[in-house]
Amino acid sequence: MDTGISPGSVGIVTPQTAKFSEPVRLKCGAAVDEYELVYETYGTLNAGRTNAVLACHALNAAHHVAGHYADDPDNVGWWDNMIGPGKPVDTNRFFVVGVNNLGGCHGSTGPKSINPKTGKPWGSDFPVVTVEDWVATQARLADYLGIGRFAAVMGGSLGAMQALQWAVSYPQRVRHALLIACTPNLSAQNIAFNEVARQAIITDPDFHGGHYYEHHARPTRGLRVARMVGHITYLSDDEMASKFGRQLKHGRIQYSFEPEFEIESYLRHQGRRFSEYFDANTYLRITKVLDYFDPAFEHGGDLARALAPAAAGFLVISFTTDWRFSSERSREIVKALLHNRRDVTYAEIDAPHGHDAFLLDDARYHRLVAAYFDRIGVDVAV
Amino acid sequence: MDTGISPGSVGIVTPQTAKFSEPVRLKCGAAVDEYELVYETYGTLNAGRTNAVLACHALNAAHHVAGHYADDPDNVGWWDNMIGPGKPVDTNRFFVVGVNNLGGCHGSTGPKSINPKTGKPWGSDFPVVTVEDWVATQARLADYLGIGRFAAVMGGSLGAMQALQWAVSYPQRVRHALLIACTPNLSAQNIAFNEVARQAIITDPDFHGGHYYEHHARPTRGLRVARMVGHITYLSDDEMASKFGRQLKHGRIQYSFEPEFEIESYLRHQGRRFSEYFDANTYLRITKVLDYFDPAFEHGGDLARALAPAAAGFLVISFTTDWRFSSERSREIVKALLHNRRDVTYAEIDAPHGHDAFLLDDARYHRLVAAYFDRIGVDVAV
Repeated sequence: MDTGISPGSVGIVTPQTAKFSEPVRLKCGAAVDEYELVYETYGTLNAGRTNAVLACHALNAAHHVAGHYADDPDNVGWWDNMIGPGKPVDTNRFFVVGVNNLGGCHGSTGPKSINPKTGKPWGSDFPVVTVEDWVATQARLADYLGIGRFAAVMGGSLGAMQALQWAVSYPQRVRHALLIACTPNLSAQNIAFNEVARQAIITDPDFHGGHYYEHHARPTRGLRVARMVGHITYLSDDEMASKFGRQLKHGRIQYSFEPEFEIESYLRHQGRRFSEYFDANTYLRITKVLDYFDPAFEHGGDLARALAPAAAGFLVISFTTDWRFSSERSREIVKALLHNRRDVTYAEIDAPHGHDAFLLDDARYHRLVAAYFDRIGVDVAV
Repeated sequence: MDTGISPGSVGIVTPQTAKFSEPVRLKCGAAVDEYELVYETYGTLNAGRTNAVLACHALNAAHHVAGHYADDPDNVGWWDNMIGPGKPVDTNRFFVVGVNNLGGCHGSTGPKSINPKTGKPWGSDFPVVTVEDWVATQARLADYLGIGRFAAVMGGSLGAMQALQWAVSYPQRVRHALLIACTPNLSAQNIAFNEVARQAIITDPDFHGGHYYEHHARPTRGLRVARMVGHITYLSDDEMASKFGRQLKHGRIQYSFEPEFEIESYLRHQGRRFSEYFDANTYLRITKVLDYFDPAFEHGGDLARALAPAAAGFLVISFTTDWRFSSERSREIVKALLHNRRDVTYAEIDAPHGHDAFLLDDARYHRLVAAYFDRIGVDVAV
C-alpha cells in the first residue's frame, strides 16, 4: 500500500502531555505555578538512557517534529526530512524528543490557556519568556522522561539558540549541541523586523490589548502582515528571484491593488495560512524570546566567557545565503568555542535558500549531520 | 546674523503651482482631465535656457528639494546638501526644478484632491500612475517653464528611475542623466516589501477602501507599519549595527512590549512622524510606481534594447551597502548603456549608509557629482 509517506518516516505519532505542578520562576521575575508541555517522541530510549536527542523548534513550529498523525496524514513534522529511520538523525539508534515550548499555542501552556487564577485565558497577562526559561522547562521534561543527559540537543535558528543555551545552562546534561543557522544574538536589523511584526499585531483593533479571546476576535490582519514580513527574511533574495522573479499573476499588468506579481500572491497566501492557526500572543512572545537572547550580555559582551561553562561537542552549520543570521554570526560562536578549546566542527553550506535552508533537504547539509551523528556513541556510560 | 542656514543654501524658497487643463492619458488607460503640479525652482534660467536641471523625488519626498520656507525655517529641502550656491549642483550656474509628482500629497493633484466629477476627494478612484506618466507630466511642466532641453535630469532611487525614463522617453530633451542608487526594475524581494507595506495600509480598518477622507479617518496604524518596514530597507545592516546595535533604551531589559532597544524607539518614531504628514493613498500608488517600473519588459527583457533611444550622457552611482538596489543592479544599467555605446561614468561608492546614502553628504559622492556638473557646459546651443 502506498501511504504517501517516505520509507524513512517514523510513521504515525501521538502527542503526549506532561503536567508540572512545581512553579517555574521565569527570567522576567514572574512565575508560572503550574503548566503543561506537549511533546512527541520518536524511536526508543535505550536501557542506558544514552541515546536521547532533543530537537528544539524555531519561531512557528512546535512539538510535531517528525512523522504524521493517524487522523491527519498530511500534517507531517517540520523536521521529518532530518529525523526518522535511516535519516541523518536515525531513530533506529536515537530516541528523539520534540516539545512545544512554554508560551506556545500548540497545546503547551501559553497565552490562550486558562489562567487558573482568573478562570479566563491568560492573554497579555501571560509572562514574557526567554530561551533560558524554555531550556529550564525542557530540563524538567527531561527529568520527567528519565533523561539525565542528552546525546545531543539540536535546532535551527531559534532552535539552535536553545541548543546553545542547553550547553551553557546544563553542561553535564548535553554531550553534543548542533547549532544550525544560529546567531549569538539578534542584530539591530533582526530586532527591527521583529518590531514591525509586533506593531502590526498590537495595533490591529482586533488585538484588544492582548485579551482578544474574550472579545471572540483574533488580530488576523496584524498576524498576516507580521508573517509576510517575517517570511521575506527567511528566504534569500536569490531564491525569491529564481522562484518568483517578476513573474506576473495574469500575464499582463492589471494596474490594480490585487496581486500583480506571483510573489505578492505567495506572500499573501503565507500570511493568511499562518494567521489561521497561529496565536498572536504567542507570536509576540516568541519574537521577544529572539530579541532577548544574548548570552554574552551578562558577561560584558564577551561571548567566549559566556560560553565557558559549555562542555559539549559542537556542530555549527551556517548557510551562505542566510542574510537573517549570516555565516559571520555563526563564526562568532565558533570562535568563542574554540577560544574555550571546545571540540567544534563548523561548516558553511553553499545553499541558495537563505535562512530557511535549515529546514530543507540539502544533500551536503544532511550528509554532514548524518556523519556527525554516526560519531555519537550510544553505548557509553553517561 | 546667524540664520542657522549653511552659506551654500539657496535661502528662502516659495512653492509655485502650474495648472494643466489638457487631459493626460495614463499608462493604466485612465485619463486625468485637469491637474496641478506644485514645483520649486532655484537659481536663474539663463537666456539660452541651457542650464535647467530637473531633480526628481523618491518615495517620501516632494518638490521641496533645497532651501527653506520663510515661515518654517526648519523645513529644509531633501537634497539641500546637493543643490545650492557652491554645492555640487551649483545654483550660481544651474537653474534647478523640483516638482511634486502627479498622485502626490504635497500639493500636486492626487488622491486627496477633489475629483471635479464628484466634488469629493478622489481617494481610491485616483488612477494608478507610473514612472512614464510622471515623466510625461514633468515634460509638460518643462514646456510651461519654457525649458526645451534639460542640461541634466537627476534623482536617487525612484528619482533615478525618472531620470532614466526621461533619457528614453525624451532623448532630445536631456543632455545628461544622473542615476543614483538606481535599479532597472524591482526584484521579487523589493516587491515583497512593498506588498507588506500595502497590506498593512489596506487592511487597516481606518482605510475604508481608500475613501477614508469622507469618514474623517486616516489609516495611520497601517502607514506607521508600512513606513517602519520601508525604513529598514533604506538602511544597511552595518549602519543599523553601528548606530543602534543592541543598545537598550532603559539600560536594562524591562521584559515588556514597550521599546526595549533603541532601534525599536527609532523605528516607531519614524513610523509615527511619517504617518502624520503622508497620505496613505499616495503611498500605495508610489509603491506601485516602483513595482511597475521595468523598461525592459516591453522589449522581451532586453534592457539594452529598451535603453537604445537614450542619447544623454550618464553618471551612474551606486553604494556598496545598498542592499535594496544593489550595485549589481546599477551595473546592469551601465552594461546596457555601454552596449549602446553611450557615454557613461560609473562609480560604486564605498559608503556605510545603505540605500539612503544618496541623500547624505558623503564627500566622495558629492565630489563626483560636482566634477560631473563642472563638465556640463551651459553656454552651448541646445
